[in-house]
Amino acid sequence: MARNGTRTNRQVLLIERPTGRLEERHFKAVDETIGEPGPGEVLCRTVLLSIDPANRAWMRGRTYRDQLGEGDVMAGFTLAEVIAENGTDIAVGTVVTCESGWQEFAIHPANRVQRVNVKAPLTQHMSVLGVTGLTAYFGLLEVGRPKNGETVVVSAAAGATGNVVGQIARILGCRVVGIAGSGEKNEMLRRELGFDAAVNYKSATLREDLRAACPNGIDVYFDNVGGALLDAVLPVMRLHGRVVCCGAVSQYDVEGTPTGSRLVPGILVVSRLRMEGFLVSDFADKWEEAQAQLAEWVANGKVKVLEEVLEGLDAAPGALIGLLAGANTGKRLVRVGPDPA
Amino acid sequence: MARNGTRTNRQVLLIERPTGRLEERHFKAVDETIGEPGPGEVLCRTVLLSIDPANRAWMRGRTYRDQLGEGDVMAGFTLAEVIAENGTDIAVGTVVTCESGWQEFAIHPANRVQRVNVKAPLTQHMSVLGVTGLTAYFGLLEVGRPKNGETVVVSAAAGATGNVVGQIARILGCRVVGIAGSGEKNEMLRRELGFDAAVNYKSATLREDLRAACPNGIDVYFDNVGGALLDAVLPVMRLHGRVVCCGAVSQYDVEGTPTGSRLVPGILVVSRLRMEGFLVSDFADKWEEAQAQLAEWVANGKVKVLEEVLEGLDAAPGALIGLLAGANTGKRLVRVGPDPA
Repeated sequence: MARNGTRTNRQVLLIERPTGRLEERHFKAVDETIGEPGPGEVLCRTVLLSIDPANRAWMRGRTYRDQLGEGDVMAGFTLAEVIAENGTDIAVGTVVTCESGWQEFAIHPANRVQRVNVKAPLTQHMSVLGVTGLTAYFGLLEVGRPKNGETVVVSAAAGATGNVVGQIARILGCRVVGIAGSGEKNEMLRRELGFDAAVNYKSATLREDLRAACPNGIDVYFDNVGGALLDAVLPVMRLHGRVVCCGAVSQYDVEGTPTGSRLVPGILVVSRLRMEGFLVSDFADKWEEAQAQLAEWVANGKVKVLEEVLEGLDAAPGALIGLLAGANTGKRLVRVGPDPA
Repeated sequence: MARNGTRTNRQVLLIERPTGRLEERHFKAVDETIGEPGPGEVLCRTVLLSIDPANRAWMRGRTYRDQLGEGDVMAGFTLAEVIAENGTDIAVGTVVTCESGWQEFAIHPANRVQRVNVKAPLTQHMSVLGVTGLTAYFGLLEVGRPKNGETVVVSAAAGATGNVVGQIARILGCRVVGIAGSGEKNEMLRRELGFDAAVNYKSATLREDLRAACPNGIDVYFDNVGGALLDAVLPVMRLHGRVVCCGAVSQYDVEGTPTGSRLVPGILVVSRLRMEGFLVSDFADKWEEAQAQLAEWVANGKVKVLEEVLEGLDAAPGALIGLLAGANTGKRLVRVGPDPA
């Protein structure tokens, strides 16, 4: 596929860092050019772009990566095909994951791309078999450590990570309660994914709804949301409960400093709770094993795959804006180019 | 010592629950009478009364015990002598710990008192060998789990629990940094207790002071304080650091809802921190072993004992009010009666 010379490379730039809600005007699409990979580099053609709440957090300040700057190509996780290489051991045609961001092509050092052992539709390697599914797997099993019969509550339950968390917890024999923002999502969680109950976080009787859905209290709360919802959940936790801190999406797309949790640390002492944050990269040595388990669950129908694929790079800004407003169900991806032949 | 009939029993009542700062007017001393123990009960003469930040928390709402009501005898941990018993296996003259509260005498079911195996001055059984020292021991070793060479920071470091935390961490070979509220306290921590550094939480350059005192970041933060200080410490934590949630004294003696932590849960994810609460009672099966270790450290001078003993039950309200304002150094006790003969 690779030819000498340059090719047009459409990119979406972050041209202004939002102070409040993210809007289309903060982005701008441009057509640049890209050349050939230098020694030790590969040229990647983006196939799929992952749309994640963390994308918004990266605009707010330094996290586990540098803050995004104005004028930068918007950052994002991608699945790509290697279409040219220069003195590396990666063959042209290899499918890889990388952080190309919001653009059609990118050049990376060979050690910054990860080969994908393709064993499912490529979208699944960006959803349940990718970072999203692995995040659910390790956060629940290694940080939350639920036992059979315990009650597991997950927020953003219809989201990319949340739906997988709930499905794994159900496989473990837990009582599974989802928290999502619409009746339709909650209905889907119960009917299609086998959640035992689902609660709408916009309910005026949220605390009571939670208590009714969790008559024995909550043993594990998988928190994708933070903020006021965390403080609604904490008083329902059982003694020695565990809070898996995966993200705080409620805090990303708002102005000013986060509100955080009014109940921390007091309630952690009284109820002897453990709150623990993690990144999926902390468990990189176990990814393969986890992917095999997830693939088996998908193959035998124990885990259903929830995905939304939007078409074309220019759809990316709207895809992220919608995600932050809760418009998605399952993993949201943008298809930037066709699957490799 | 016990005789038939009734005896005068001076008590301090909580007559009004404070909404803001605790004051003397919230208490009232009364002279009641107390009779003989019923079947299965013991009559306890209070020797020492423990003054603890938790006393104030109990006035705010339900914690691990019921909220204190107006007109109740003020609650508190006590060391007492059994002076009468009725069909129990506890001999008159036995020294016990119990929750008699702020009064000279109390009757308890036999199973609500714990025998003290006296091996040190009685005050030490209420400080370093008592609940206070055990709290430091289990919180640091079982929850914080510091390793040799790591940096341990403790707040309320000149307080009853904090000073023992720091001394144990020093024995473990950690870099030990205390946070206290005066230059005198911090000088004492460095000079007398061997802390490597000490920081004043009232400093205008607190964050910088912390970073200077902890050039490698903080591995374990033993948090007695909560509130704004917690949010000052969290950004200095190292990846995979641990926050031992022991108490939140900054939040007890104030009006309204606690401010909590603005940085939770976001920073827990980014820095992969673990925050965990505990109560010393969770480790009751290991108390004896821990007491033996603490007694050995005290005997060989590796742990110095910091205590303040105020005289007479009527001193209790002032002792607690002062403690909440940071007036104490080490464990604060009130002597209610003489040691057993």
